Amino acid sequence: MHLPDSPQRQPFYLDCDTGIDDAMAIAYLLASDRVDLLGIGTVSGNISAEMGARNTLALLELAGRSDIPVAIGEHDFLATPFAGGAIHVHGENGIGGVVLAEPARTPASESAPEMIVRLARQHPGELHILAIGPLTNLAKALLLHPGLATLVKEVTIMGGAALVPGNITAVAEANIHNDPDAAAAVFAASWFITMVPLDATMQSLIEAVDRDRLVASPRPVAQAIGAMLDTYFDFYVQFFGRRTSVLHDPLAAAVAVGDLGLGTSPVVQVQVDTSHGPGRGQTICDLRWRFLGHPEQAGAHIRVVLAVETDFTPLMVDAILSL
Amino acid sequence: MHLPDSPQRQPFYLDCDTGIDDAMAIAYLLASDRVDLLGIGTVSGNISAEMGARNTLALLELAGRSDIPVAIGEHDFLATPFAGGAIHVHGENGIGGVVLAEPARTPASESAPEMIVRLARQHPGELHILAIGPLTNLAKALLLHPGLATLVKEVTIMGGAALVPGNITAVAEANIHNDPDAAAAVFAASWFITMVPLDATMQSLIEAVDRDRLVASPRPVAQAIGAMLDTYFDFYVQFFGRRTSVLHDPLAAAVAVGDLGLGTSPVVQVQVDTSHGPGRGQTICDLRWRFLGHPEQAGAHIRVVLAVETDFTPLMVDAILSL
Repeated sequence: MHLPDSPQRQPFYLDCDTGIDDAMAIAYLLASDRVDLLGIGTVSGNISAEMGARNTLALLELAGRSDIPVAIGEHDFLATPFAGGAIHVHGENGIGGVVLAEPARTPASESAPEMIVRLARQHPGELHILAIGPLTNLAKALLLHPGLATLVKEVTIMGGAALVPGNITAVAEANIHNDPDAAAAVFAASWFITMVPLDATMQSLIEAVDRDRLVASPRPVAQAIGAMLDTYFDFYVQFFGRRTSVLHDPLAAAVAVGDLGLGTSPVVQVQVDTSHGPGRGQTICDLRWRFLGHPEQAGAHIRVVLAVETDFTPLMVDAILSL
Repeated sequence: MHLPDSPQRQPFYLDCDTGIDDAMAIAYLLASDRVDLLGIGTVSGNISAEMGARNTLALLELAGRSDIPVAIGEHDFLATPFAGGAIHVHGENGIGGVVLAEPARTPASESAPEMIVRLARQHPGELHILAIGPLTNLAKALLLHPGLATLVKEVTIMGGAALVPGNITAVAEANIHNDPDAAAAVFAASWFITMVPLDATMQSLIEAVDRDRLVASPRPVAQAIGAMLDTYFDFYVQFFGRRTSVLHDPLAAAVAVGDLGLGTSPVVQVQVDTSHGPGRGQTICDLRWRFLGHPEQAGAHIRVVLAVETDFTPLMVDAILSL
């Protein structure tokens, strides 16, 4: 049911917790002619996995893309129960209070971890996984199929913080902090990971003028996302002193697609702090050799994107407007 | 026995683990006409507290400053025994293998923590404490005299890492990592602390040309420190790819004296990771409001020097050459 293969389109699975910036990432992927989005799984994070699936189905319908299956994933994290999410950031319904039509479709009968394993088996060596929520589904998928990591082409993750502060604690970013144990398992698997941490995602801001362009569009996805941004702006004003917001998830999507020029992005050892100390959920990236240009570290398989060089916001706004 | 008071000279206590860069810090303080160095205590770190005291006495004698008492402090850390120090950085004797004349004096009969308490009582509200080793002596002094923090004017610490990698682990700096429990106690006390972390100290480098100037000097302290630098350069070449070294301790000394223009230096919450996870010894600085210029955080009493604006190396070389 998905779009016909073309040499440019690469098979993608998206794992998300939709979420305002998740909605933007979905829109970005839908707009790309380099992406064949084979399935979306949801996980609790910004909101519950179930509500995330509902939001995702509604958004896909709004975009006329009811061909893409949506699977509900893990409600609870590996070691802790889901505790209600980030309503203060994303609103009660996860998408800034914007009311989308109740989706006609229901979620897939398979779970998100099952979907990951199925897609990886159907596209051995070709599947891109983009994970923009907590990594619980990916960790569960690794348990379901221990050979999974070798079947997947690469994994791109929005999460963590290397040399900038966290956004949940002084050192931990929300996706990783929600389920550090899952993150540790995912980072320990043998697949190649591109980690897009706050270092990169806090560099791209979407401003009120961009929001106004989206809201003024005649297209329903752009209108909806523009309206969601009001809630996002309400939250971010405390950090930036004006109505603006960061673009965590869509930036990671653009990195995964290969649309952005990357700045310093060393492949280094990354350890997730799974202790119960004040560093819990931190992504400890070994950047001690930065003055030497980050020479190869034995066994390292995680690329840490510390900066992007492309001005991403216009790309993203244009992508959403094109839907 | 110390130098006569003058309006410009401020009473200082130095806590150190001498150490090549400690030797530079001592020289810097001795050269300053704004410092009245009332006493020096040693702690294990780069080398044992005992060897540090011997090095300190020898260096003071070389500088003709046998008036300054030197007290041996804690050999072991609060929770762990001293494990031999950083011979690979500072050499077997802690001062790069440079052989100084056996000091004629012996250490003071009081311990370093006792010296801290005595000096704070003798100079209530006036004493500057500069700590450039592990914080074990300061933690012990707080135990000896619970009112100590209110007697001291301010504490300056070389230690920690805020937004740059550590130098012992990916996130921990050596002084704090050696005794995180002591650091946590010192940071929790009510005194005002200026923390000079790797963010600031990795910015100032001393080059081979500076080393040559020191070695070529007719003055014994400059000659000795110049010769020590060879060992320091041997270590730092792996991080910088050339013979150079950083100036951790003397930079902190210059900050304590007030000789440097400070760059971004917010007063923020700082938590030491005393867990036994991978973040042990990290100084977790809450810099999440950086886009708003680090607004006041209730109860915060630690200034984190993220950058200095003065070109420090020439100041330091000139200071050492003047002795």
